[in-house]
Order: sequence, then structure tokens, then C-alpha cells
Amino acid sequence: MDCEVVAIGTELLLGQIVDTNSAWIGEQLALGGINCRLQTKVGDNVERIVTAIRGALERADAVICCGGLGPTQDDLTREAIAAVMGVELHLDEDRADLIRWMFRGRNRRMPDNNLAQAQRPEGAEFLETQPGTAPGLRCPVGDKVIYAVPGVPWEMQQMMTNDILPDLQRRAGLTTVLRSRTLRTWGESESGLAERLAGRISELDELGNPTLAFLASGAEGLKVRITAAAGSEEEAEEILAAEEALLRGLIGDFVFGLDDQTMEAVVLAELRKRGLSLAVAESLTGGLIGARLSGVPGASDVFVGGVIAYSSRVKFDQLGVPEGPVVTEEAAAAMARGVRERLGADVGLAVTGVAGPDEQEGRPVGTVCVGLALRDDVRSFEIRLPGQRQAVRDYTVISALDALRRALQEP
Amino acid sequence: MDCEVVAIGTELLLGQIVDTNSAWIGEQLALGGINCRLQTKVGDNVERIVTAIRGALERADAVICCGGLGPTQDDLTREAIAAVMGVELHLDEDRADLIRWMFRGRNRRMPDNNLAQAQRPEGAEFLETQPGTAPGLRCPVGDKVIYAVPGVPWEMQQMMTNDILPDLQRRAGLTTVLRSRTLRTWGESESGLAERLAGRISELDELGNPTLAFLASGAEGLKVRITAAAGSEEEAEEILAAEEALLRGLIGDFVFGLDDQTMEAVVLAELRKRGLSLAVAESLTGGLIGARLSGVPGASDVFVGGVIAYSSRVKFDQLGVPEGPVVTEEAAAAMARGVRERLGADVGLAVTGVAGPDEQEGRPVGTVCVGLALRDDVRSFEIRLPGQRQAVRDYTVISALDALRRALQEP
Repeated sequence: MDCEVVAIGTELLLGQIVDTNSAWIGEQLALGGINCRLQTKVGDNVERIVTAIRGALERADAVICCGGLGPTQDDLTREAIAAVMGVELHLDEDRADLIRWMFRGRNRRMPDNNLAQAQRPEGAEFLETQPGTAPGLRCPVGDKVIYAVPGVPWEMQQMMTNDILPDLQRRAGLTTVLRSRTLRTWGESESGLAERLAGRISELDELGNPTLAFLASGAEGLKVRITAAAGSEEEAEEILAAEEALLRGLIGDFVFGLDDQTMEAVVLAELRKRGLSLAVAESLTGGLIGARLSGVPGASDVFVGGVIAYSSRVKFDQLGVPEGPVVTEEAAAAMARGVRERLGADVGLAVTGVAGPDEQEGRPVGTVCVGLALRDDVRSFEIRLPGQRQAVRDYTVISALDALRRALQEP
Repeated sequence: MDCEVVAIGTELLLGQIVDTNSAWIGEQLALGGINCRLQTKVGDNVERIVTAIRGALERADAVICCGGLGPTQDDLTREAIAAVMGVELHLDEDRADLIRWMFRGRNRRMPDNNLAQAQRPEGAEFLETQPGTAPGLRCPVGDKVIYAVPGVPWEMQQMMTNDILPDLQRRAGLTTVLRSRTLRTWGESESGLAERLAGRISELDELGNPTLAFLASGAEGLKVRITAAAGSEEEAEEILAAEEALLRGLIGDFVFGLDDQTMEAVVLAELRKRGLSLAVAESLTGGLIGARLSGVPGASDVFVGGVIAYSSRVKFDQLGVPEGPVVTEEAAAAMARGVRERLGADVGLAVTGVAGPDEQEGRPVGTVCVGLALRDDVRSFEIRLPGQRQAVRDYTVISALDALRRALQEP
């Protein structure tokens, strides 16, 4: 089963937006066992969109059109697909009502333009999943099919996962099941991990199944993805479980989570398990740690809040940091102790440091001190992080959370 | 003059690497006055690369192949281009010496397989610029041309700028300069903006220059991009300035910034202009607002910090919110007043609301209250935001910052 991707939007050709959607779709197709041999970017021009879709449909069994489903004049995907199918566009009153209802939910009137989004080529059907105001489409063309999804990533991704991928696999009558599991690590370099896993990697090169892939994900850490091919889901899961156990034996506690488990979710789970509440004190990160923690649904039973102590004055007055230099282990410890007491939490986590662009208190950019107050056990340490302002801030977040994870997991 | 881009590499289709090169090339072509109407991604397979290049060459006057010029077996671009030209590949001893010399410069011997990089289709010439060990190619095909550049961004970019763009413009006999400017807006829907600009849009459809494009950027707002073609840079800038003034007349204060100006940078600048300091109190955003503000270099002269009041207890104890429901305009106002006084700032900005997944205090997901304390002028309002947890949080951040921007810009 071959499926091509046609990304639609002049802004993609002009480079105003980088087309990350096609890359994501390509990865999902590969993991689903569907070939994706060609991807095309085309501008907002009906003729050229039609030509691109026709070409893709000649080469492949299925085409996913991404973008151009908005309500404006330069959203032409619906029209182009209708032309390829050789049918008319019809307004679907039912879907129009859904869109009206969505606008009402936002206390807004639906502008008339949005009616265009409720149009459907004759013979096509809307996708079940519709996270936003743009419906997705499934358009049969002989024994082939064209899908249309919006360019908004989170809308596109939900439609892909819920509707399109299962649909494609049904059509492909896929029997070999591909499943993958990702070990998420922090604290070891890619080459370091490669060394630790070298033996197993060459074994797997012989075996051919499962396979390993390293994905460097910056401040999200290094991912080691295991992909297993098998006759059934159960069998695939068994292979993954066995490989995971084997790899954990080799890279031990560098592994902080699996698949979509983020460091913040893991830390919240560890705290919840122990019935501990958490407060944060943030200087150079300015709220990033709290933002990450509170991004996890249900965080509120563990995370009470924190103090953004961006200015030194706030550190002194609000957290009881002794007046003086603030990029020190002592200041970090005082911040952790202070925020824990101040907000009445069991655990306090604090960071202070130099994000740049300029050095501070004579300390170079990337100097970061982490403070940890587990009840009365208060500790702190200094690290040196690479990169510029944003990188330093992001690495500070995961380094601090990882320090808390390791402290909690101590016997 | 039309020029297509063919990005070559299986890793691009598998989504292991996002193809940012095509976007960059597309932008350069547009700024150079060359049309780029189609971009293709193809894997490391000679047949498919040949088909992709042939197709591009039928549609366009020029093709830029990016990637697949390395020394390994799956670097097939040279071979594919030779096939399209219907000629042989020959080893160019002269270029081989250059590559050997480069390796010596790095105190390394050239591995034999790097000789492949010195191969040139008969009738093709190497590009002058060669920053790395992979030479670029210029391959005439009748009155059309194929260029090949490596996938390494900085190598590709130098070849584009020094050799390919000037070459294309010469071939096109080009004098026109293209420049663009983006108005960044918040507070009006895409269709709403389209309605307000409908008249001007149809005028410009007549004129043909400048052109307008809408770019929906989620919680970053809606972008309206003006692109002007002119005989000189100065002339292009004049057209952009005139069009910007005209559009501002139509969509007025929905415009918060230009090009790369973020909402947080604009808000910090407005505060700085007035010598005001800012503190934030965040409930559902858990630190996102502070994180955004502190992400701007030099924020520290305006942004002092804040209180992450995620739990109600922190709102009551740390910010003086009266005990009771916390998703109310009153609570938001109290939070803004409280954090301003507590942290000794001139301005307090506060948000409280329901990010979901579950409703709270009987208020549905997306209900958000924003509080604003400009010295003693304290106000608050309630809004209803679309989407799920992450979207609600992101929209809350920019909605709150925009409210502060508008309040500061009041006469």
C-alpha cells in the first residue's frame, strides 16, 4: 500500500512556514507499515493542486492532502478534490450546524465564510474526528482514496491517528503488525548510549527484528525506539517488552520514561505515589518548570504552584534568600527551602542561573544551580549547560526535574 | 522563470529529519523573483529520483536537487541526474585532488569512497562554491538546467547564494526585487479579518501587486503577509509601507506587531517605554506567561517575576483572594492586585480559569478570567476559549498579554 502526501499552501513554498506536517505523517505511515515514496508541496492554486493530486493518485493507492481547508478564498483543497473526482461541491447542512455550534461554544457568531468548510464533494464523506472548525474528508476515487486534513498540526494529527491510519491499514489488509516503543533517557550522550548498547545493536543487525533507532530530541532527551514486526499485536508487544527489559539492563536509570511519558509526568507520578506535594521557585526559567508541570492533566493534586523569582529582590523578599550573589548553590537551596515553607508543600524545587545573553555575577552563560528541599532534607548542586538562552532554559527544566526524579527514586 | 525543488533522502520521508532546506530555498527563490510552484521529497532510489527530476523538468525551467551528494551507496543524486541527461558519469581528477586536499587540511586521508563525490555527469560542471567535501553541480538539459546541492544546510546555502541564485536570475534576465512584510494580529478570526479586508483584497486581485496572504498561526495569532514586487529594494519597501498603513486603517488595533515581533516582546516594550515593571499571577497557565516574558532577552528590566497560584490555597494565602470560587472576575482582579502589591511591581497581570480536561466550579473548559492592575486601576473580564487543555492555556497567555497591550496603548 503506497500513500503519498500533498502539502498545500503557498506559504510552504515561500518558506514562511516549514512543512513539519508531512514529516509527521510520513513517520506515522512508516510505523503503520504503509509506504510513503513521494511527498509534494504545492501552492494555493486550483490547477496545480489538481495536477499534484492526480499525479499522486496515478503513482499511489492513497493520497493525504494537508492544508487548504480553511474558510478563506485561498483555501482551495475542497474545490481541487472535487475537480479530481469530477463531481460538484455541496453544502452539508448537518456539518454546517456542527460548525455553527462550535462557534456558539466560543460565544461567537459563525462568519458566513465558514460555511465553505461545510462543503463536501459529492460521494465524499467527512472524517469522524473534527477537533476544530475544519472538517476532514475521505474521498473515494475508484478503488483509491484521497484524504484531506487541515494544516493545523493538532487537528491533523488527531484525524490521522483516529481515522486515516486505521482506514489505510484496513484497506491494505495489513497482517504484519508493526509496533514500536520508545525508551526516553536523560543524562547520557548519544555516543555514550551507543557505546553502552553497541553489543546489542550488532546482535540486532544480525537478527533484523526488532530494530533500534536513536532519536536525539534536545531538551526532551535522547530517545531509543524499538520497532518490532510480528504476526499479531500480542506477539509484537511481547518482543517489545523483552527488548525493553534487556535495554534497561544496559542503560539502567538513564531511562526516565516510555513513549509519550514526559519527564514532568514521571516526576508528578513519583510524587503522587509518595503522597508528596510540590512547589517550585524559578529564576532563569521564569515559569517554564511550572508551565511544564501544570501542562499535565491532573497535576493539581501534586503541584500547588510556585514563585517566579526573576529579580533578585523577589528572591530576597519572597523566598528568604540572603542578600548577596544569587547564582550560587546556597541561593538555590534557600529558594527551595523558602518556596516549600512559603507555599506549605512537602517538596521544593528551585533553579537559579545565567541564561544569557550576558554573563552574571562573573558566572558564564549556562551556569545553573539546582536546589532541592525534600521535607527537611535540603540539597543543591551546580551544573554547566550548553547552548544559548533558550537551550539553557530548556536544559535547566529537564535537568532539575530529573534531579528530583532521581532523588525520589533513591532507596 | 519557474524553478522546482527536489529534496532527496529516505530519512525525509520517514520524518526522521524535517526538510527545512526546501523551505529555505523556496524563500530565497521568491525573494529573488523566481517562481517555485512545486517542491518534492523523494527517497534514496534511483528510479524514483529520476522520475521526480524528469517531472520537475517538464513543468519548470530549472530544478534544484538537494541532498544525496555524499560518498555512500545511498547517495544517488549524481547517478540519477546522469540518467536524466542520458550521459555517463566521469571521475573528475581535478576535483578529486581538491577533495584530497581538503582532507589533508583536516589531517585526514581521503577514504576511497569519497572519490564518488568527484564524479560529474558528462556535460555538467561543478559549482564554483564548495564549502565541504561535496561539490555542487550545474547540469544543462537543452535550454533548461538541473542544479545539485548537498543536504548540509550551510553548504547548500552558500552554493545557493553565491552560484545558483545569480545564475537563475541571469537566465531569467531578472531585475525585479520581491520583499514582504507581515502584520501580526490578535483578536479577530481569519474569516473575520478576510471580511474586513475583502474590499482591498479584490482591489489587489486587480492590481496584482502587492499581494496579501493570511497565515493562521494558532496561539501566535493571525498573520497578514504583504509581498511587493518592484524594480528596486527602496521601491519595494515604499510599496510595503504604503500597504501596511492602508491595512492598519482597516484592521486597526488588531495588529500587535510586525514580522518576528512576538506579543510578549511588544508588551515588554510598551511597559519599558512607560517605565513600568510587571508581575504576573498565574493559575491555569501555571507559569506559561512568565516563561514567555522571560524568554525575551533583556526582560529583567521590566519583568520582576510572579506567583504561580495553581492551587486555590496559594491564591488565598499568597495573593489575598477571598475564600470562595476562584474562576471569577473578582478572583482574577484580586490576584492581579495581590501579586502587584506582593512583588512591588507597577503592573499586575493575572489569569484564572478552567483548562480542562474537567469542568471546575460548574464552569466549562475554556472559561478564563483575566485580571489587570495598572497601579490602582484594577479591572477584570471573562472570556471563553476554544480547544482542549493545551490550546486553552496557550490562548489564555496571548489573550492576557493582548489585554495588557491594549490597556497600555489606551490614550
